[in-house]
Amino acid sequence: MIIASALLVGAKTYEISTTSMRILSWLDILVTLIFLVEIGIRFIAEPSKRAFFRNPWNLFDTLVVLISLVPIDNSDMALVARLVRVFRVLRMISIVPELRMLLGSLLKALPQLGYVILLMFIIFYIYAAIGATLFESINPTLWSDIAISMLTLFRVMTFEDWTDVMYETMEVYPLSWVYYLSFIFFTAFAFLNMVIGIVVNVMNAENEKLLKAQAEEAHEPTLKDIHDKLQRLEKLLEPRT
Amino acid sequence: MIIASALLVGAKTYEISTTSMRILSWLDILVTLIFLVEIGIRFIAEPSKRAFFRNPWNLFDTLVVLISLVPIDNSDMALVARLVRVFRVLRMISIVPELRMLLGSLLKALPQLGYVILLMFIIFYIYAAIGATLFESINPTLWSDIAISMLTLFRVMTFEDWTDVMYETMEVYPLSWVYYLSFIFFTAFAFLNMVIGIVVNVMNAENEKLLKAQAEEAHEPTLKDIHDKLQRLEKLLEPRT
Amino acid sequence: MIIASALLVGAKTYEISTTSMRILSWLDILVTLIFLVEIGIRFIAEPSKRAFFRNPWNLFDTLVVLISLVPIDNSDMALVARLVRVFRVLRMISIVPELRMLLGSLLKALPQLGYVILLMFIIFYIYAAIGATLFESINPTLWSDIAISMLTLFRVMTFEDWTDVMYETMEVYPLSWVYYLSFIFFTAFAFLNMVIGIVVNVMNAENEKLLKAQAEEAHEPTLKDIHDKLQRLEKLLEPRT
Amino acid sequence: MIIASALLVGAKTYEISTTSMRILSWLDILVTLIFLVEIGIRFIAEPSKRAFFRNPWNLFDTLVVLISLVPIDNSDMALVARLVRVFRVLRMISIVPELRMLLGSLLKALPQLGYVILLMFIIFYIYAAIGATLFESINPTLWSDIAISMLTLFRVMTFEDWTDVMYETMEVYPLSWVYYLSFIFFTAFAFLNMVIGIVVNVMNAENEKLLKAQAEEAHEPTLKDIHDKLQRLEKLLEPRT
Repeated sequence: MIIASALLVGAKTYEISTTSMRILSWLDILVTLIFLVEIGIRFIAEPSKRAFFRNPWNLFDTLVVLISLVPIDNSDMALVARLVRVFRVLRMISIVPELRMLLGSLLKALPQLGYVILLMFIIFYIYAAIGATLFESINPTLWSDIAISMLTLFRVMTFEDWTDVMYETMEVYPLSWVYYLSFIFFTAFAFLNMVIGIVVNVMNAENEKLLKAQAEEAHEPTLKDIHDKLQRLEKLLEPRT
Repeated sequence: MIIASALLVGAKTYEISTTSMRILSWLDILVTLIFLVEIGIRFIAEPSKRAFFRNPWNLFDTLVVLISLVPIDNSDMALVARLVRVFRVLRMISIVPELRMLLGSLLKALPQLGYVILLMFIIFYIYAAIGATLFESINPTLWSDIAISMLTLFRVMTFEDWTDVMYETMEVYPLSWVYYLSFIFFTAFAFLNMVIGIVVNVMNAENEKLLKAQAEEAHEPTLKDIHDKLQRLEKLLEPRT
Repeated sequence: MIIASALLVGAKTYEISTTSMRILSWLDILVTLIFLVEIGIRFIAEPSKRAFFRNPWNLFDTLVVLISLVPIDNSDMALVARLVRVFRVLRMISIVPELRMLLGSLLKALPQLGYVILLMFIIFYIYAAIGATLFESINPTLWSDIAISMLTLFRVMTFEDWTDVMYETMEVYPLSWVYYLSFIFFTAFAFLNMVIGIVVNVMNAENEKLLKAQAEEAHEPTLKDIHDKLQRLEKLLEPRT
Repeated sequence: MIIASALLVGAKTYEISTTSMRILSWLDILVTLIFLVEIGIRFIAEPSKRAFFRNPWNLFDTLVVLISLVPIDNSDMALVARLVRVFRVLRMISIVPELRMLLGSLLKALPQLGYVILLMFIIFYIYAAIGATLFESINPTLWSDIAISMLTLFRVMTFEDWTDVMYETMEVYPLSWVYYLSFIFFTAFAFLNMVIGIVVNVMNAENEKLLKAQAEEAHEPTLKDIHDKLQRLEKLLEPRT
């Protein structure tokens, strides 16, 4: 039921007809009330009140519901209010446990890749500094400062009209293709490394899980058990010789 | 022979010369007849008539053949009829068993990825709702409602002139690059996760198949067998001490 | 030395100055002579003349050298002659054994993927037939017949200005985005499957190689050997009880 | 502290206000001094002076610091000096050991892929030679010589407006799509092979590490040990029969 109401909220941003506006605003209030009641029930059902707020998902749910309760008259704030309501859709993630698990495993993989991301940032930073120094006079829109240069370089990395950017600077510096090609190679190489890093991590985790499952399932005697048994047999035989 | 006739049908959409039109329509009738006869033979050859219709491939074949039998005079329907004939090419998949297997394994992999696809849809949905709310006044063609916004976001995801879309909104909201870059990172991350998920699934299935094949092929005694044998040996020796 | 001369031939297409033209044509004749002598020596050194022509690499080398011997006066044929000389660079592959091995393993992997490529071709064929039927009146340059439609679809698959193609047809058929998105999903899925297929194949081959190498290196007694030994021990003990 | 100062140096290229210029130049001198002192301390702390210069990272650090000491008055050289300072950011890699390791492993993987890169270069070379020969008269900007043709082909490989390049040449040579499509297939295939090569290499290295770690951790008796033990048992029993 909550999923249905969340989708209904999302659908509200869709139609902008004048007559159905009133129905939508009533439905909006209804959904806010349902959400409020639902959070209330969950809060009461929780035995320890502290544990409720320690769970980040509960905190997130409460925040989203409380913010949508704030009455808004100002037309400027109305836009913000509509945006906050969009985040209600995110509640779907907090409700479906599989999505929570998926997001958790994604976040867990991130820190392991920290150094590759740092390396990539350094590559971007150096190239952006060079680009802002050399190409600023050619096209200030693309290379005016280091932040905009990094955005331009991200564009080059996604191959989005990167030749237009290159041909422009090649008119002044004919060798500037070295700059772009080396950048593409470095970032592609670092990116590839990142992807492989994730794949290997996931594979290893998967393999270890598999091995553990096999070991527990089989209850097979280990080679060590057999060796010990043979040791004892040998002792049984030796005294008699 | 059926493959050849199917390709002939496809070739019909190619040439649109005026004189060969007649020959093509005759060939078309011939192919329809051959298909009809072929389905008929298969139906008669099947011992149980019920099993024939329970096979989805047979059902699909029969449907395609029957629809192309419907006589069409109306010029509007003629277009539909030509489209239906295109689907005859799909019969190639139902004829080649390897393609049927391939398609089957593809469809089998899909449900396992259901939650990643759901997560991706939620990301698209939230960003489309934000985009439709904020950017509608800037460019109604790209951001008029949530459905068109999702199409625009799919375009951004494929890096198709995404900077044009971004520069346009950055004139009004200079920080809107955060919107685009975060969207690209989230979707790329979710997509990467999906790909890795498929790879790991396929690899695991492959490994298990390999392990089973090895175990069955070798008929090797397990460690358990050896342990049991030693147990008996021990018992044989013990009473005499 | 041959590699150097091959590179020299390639370099010939580079400079088009008027004075150095003469030197280049002399160098060209020199390279042709060196190649001719080299092939001659290899042919004489080969003990069995038949084995020489059975090796596809030798055949390829001989053909490239012989064709460049044909005297050309016609200006139209001069272009073809220059192109044939370009293929001399391919001789580098026939000379470096690692490249020959690499190419061989690439070609060996191709037939295993035959069915995925066939499936992809069927997807392209069906969509091209639909596109040529529906969109021909909208833009004859992109959709005039099934061959050009397939080229346009390949362009859509590489995400090259695919939105321009889509927006054009959406003006007539507003639902035509279904056509493009479903096509992108199907091809991306089939392509992904192809890549995973190659990865799994390579991995399996690699693993089997590793396992074989381990087995041969260790000369470890198998579990079967130990089991047999225990069997004999048991027989030794049993008669005495 | 060094990381902070390195980031400060990078930040210098960002703001170009007139008043803060003076402060930045003072900070610049300060950073240069800190770096100089740091290198000096490291040099003195090193017991063997030779080992210091044998480490490529130390050499790199010293070079970057020394170059930024050179006084520059000429406005032309000022640009070069600013660029050299950018490379100070690279010192971050020499400071963080994880980044040094990461870069080391990346460089180690490169030579193994040498032949695939060579194959790719040959493909580019041949296609560029053909392109420069055939298409030069059509568009001299894109196909004037073999170097520019290779740049154009790299653009085609990244799918950047490649259809524009293709449609232009198809007006003169209607079959030139074969040229572009075969090029895309060859490079995509070689690239795929390169990626798989890296993945397999990394995986194998990872697996071997895992196997070694397992073997060392378990101290399990090997099958050979058990076999030897049984051999001895058999000898103990045999004399008595």
